[in-house]
Amino acid sequence: MKNRSTTPIAVRRVTIGGVRDERDLVATEEPMEIRVVTPGDGGRTDAVAITMRTPGHDFELAVGFLLSEGMLAGREDVVDVSYCPDPDDMQQYNIVQVTLAPGALFEPGLLARNFYTTSSCGVCGKASLEALRTFGAVSVGQSPRVAASLVRKLPGRLRAAQPVFEQTGGLHAAALFVAQGDLLTLREDVGRHNAFDKLVGHHLMAGNLPLAQHVVVVSGRASWELMQKALAAGISTLVAVGAPSSLAVELANEFGMTLVGFASANRFNVYAGGHRIVLD
Amino acid sequence: MKNRSTTPIAVRRVTIGGVRDERDLVATEEPMEIRVVTPGDGGRTDAVAITMRTPGHDFELAVGFLLSEGMLAGREDVVDVSYCPDPDDMQQYNIVQVTLAPGALFEPGLLARNFYTTSSCGVCGKASLEALRTFGAVSVGQSPRVAASLVRKLPGRLRAAQPVFEQTGGLHAAALFVAQGDLLTLREDVGRHNAFDKLVGHHLMAGNLPLAQHVVVVSGRASWELMQKALAAGISTLVAVGAPSSLAVELANEFGMTLVGFASANRFNVYAGGHRIVLD
Repeated sequence: MKNRSTTPIAVRRVTIGGVRDERDLVATEEPMEIRVVTPGDGGRTDAVAITMRTPGHDFELAVGFLLSEGMLAGREDVVDVSYCPDPDDMQQYNIVQVTLAPGALFEPGLLARNFYTTSSCGVCGKASLEALRTFGAVSVGQSPRVAASLVRKLPGRLRAAQPVFEQTGGLHAAALFVAQGDLLTLREDVGRHNAFDKLVGHHLMAGNLPLAQHVVVVSGRASWELMQKALAAGISTLVAVGAPSSLAVELANEFGMTLVGFASANRFNVYAGGHRIVLD
Repeated sequence: MKNRSTTPIAVRRVTIGGVRDERDLVATEEPMEIRVVTPGDGGRTDAVAITMRTPGHDFELAVGFLLSEGMLAGREDVVDVSYCPDPDDMQQYNIVQVTLAPGALFEPGLLARNFYTTSSCGVCGKASLEALRTFGAVSVGQSPRVAASLVRKLPGRLRAAQPVFEQTGGLHAAALFVAQGDLLTLREDVGRHNAFDKLVGHHLMAGNLPLAQHVVVVSGRASWELMQKALAAGISTLVAVGAPSSLAVELANEFGMTLVGFASANRFNVYAGGHRIVLD
């Protein structure tokens, strides 16, 4: 399979000085469908989601997505991950099937349904947090603590490790670091949620969850959804290069997580869980 | 109703020089549910989506979303837009009901379903474009043409008009300009798709669609989904401050749209439809 994470295109570069027609690379965006196969007598296949993603690490994306949606409890629920067998060469890499173990708790739309059942005619930030609690969110421990001097280095380490961003200027990244600062894993995608799911999916399949001794760094903003994904993976600390949203801050406070925003080489803001940041 | 687009929070600012505990504002993020009410004998209420958005311009968000999903053909399909009547003060502003005119063609999941029916075990960029065609995309005309010198000014005009970004550093924006350069409308949201839906929803309700003489400018990247939303509104030219994805470029070429990326005061790149950019 060729490198599908970038796509060559024609571009006309217009500057004050003039115009040049050239070839360039953009980040590839393709739909991917995630299917869940439940084996056995009551066996069935459900298409649970379609996401626009950058090809690459597709299996990790599928299982990471299912974890954060509450459709998987852990590695032991996954028997097999494969592309949908299809003779059409172009399309066969855009459907990923996750086969569950017999007895795995698969409930499509679990989280979405909780949104609705929490209150009859109501949906709000509080209901969203309530749904997460019902849903049995992983609890995060007190560790690890992270040095402030390290937090300032993380955005630079993230950017230095982003190969496709360098080529296209157009990708989000999520990266996992150990609390002492070494980069373990980085994933890129046109969708920031996808980059995060790929990262978590990788460690789910490797049997590393919960990621209790780690820090996750994201290239963009910190939203409710990213915090929820971090929580599902047992990650206590999220460092964002961009701004946090109100609900991201609320979620972090509610579940005892540490949330850092606007991280750069010179400064950062702590929005929740300041006890994990060691000032040096 | 108080200003709900920003939320005050506590922040610890850590710099190399020291630490300060302060109050600050972050962009509000709250879930909003969109419901469609079909009146008459076969009347029913369907919850069609739940989106994490920044409160404000909620009615515009609802109708803009429905338009881009192919659930509305135009202004005449909308009889009423209202918040769900609920005694709970906190939640009543997070559910928006759109009541359709009798005879309006409402098909939940139309576009999603086309993804699936286009090919039995396949989903790919080509299928996505095919689905849009089936779905009856608005065609864009040849006009308007836009001066290159104006394109370079648009990102600055966008930023200057972003009130909530100034306060929080955390919002995406979508803005509509006339081809001569005047700003008509700007909308902000934690979700870039929401900002776009609010913008289009406003003009849908005002009876201004298709937006054949306009240019839309977005603060972030150009994805498939934003191009599809522009197309649904009849907008021929999209200018992005960030990078385009491969499928955004493909969609623009396929439907005769103009796509500009990496727009700044000094330069920009044209990825499709260069005939609408007048070099000066």
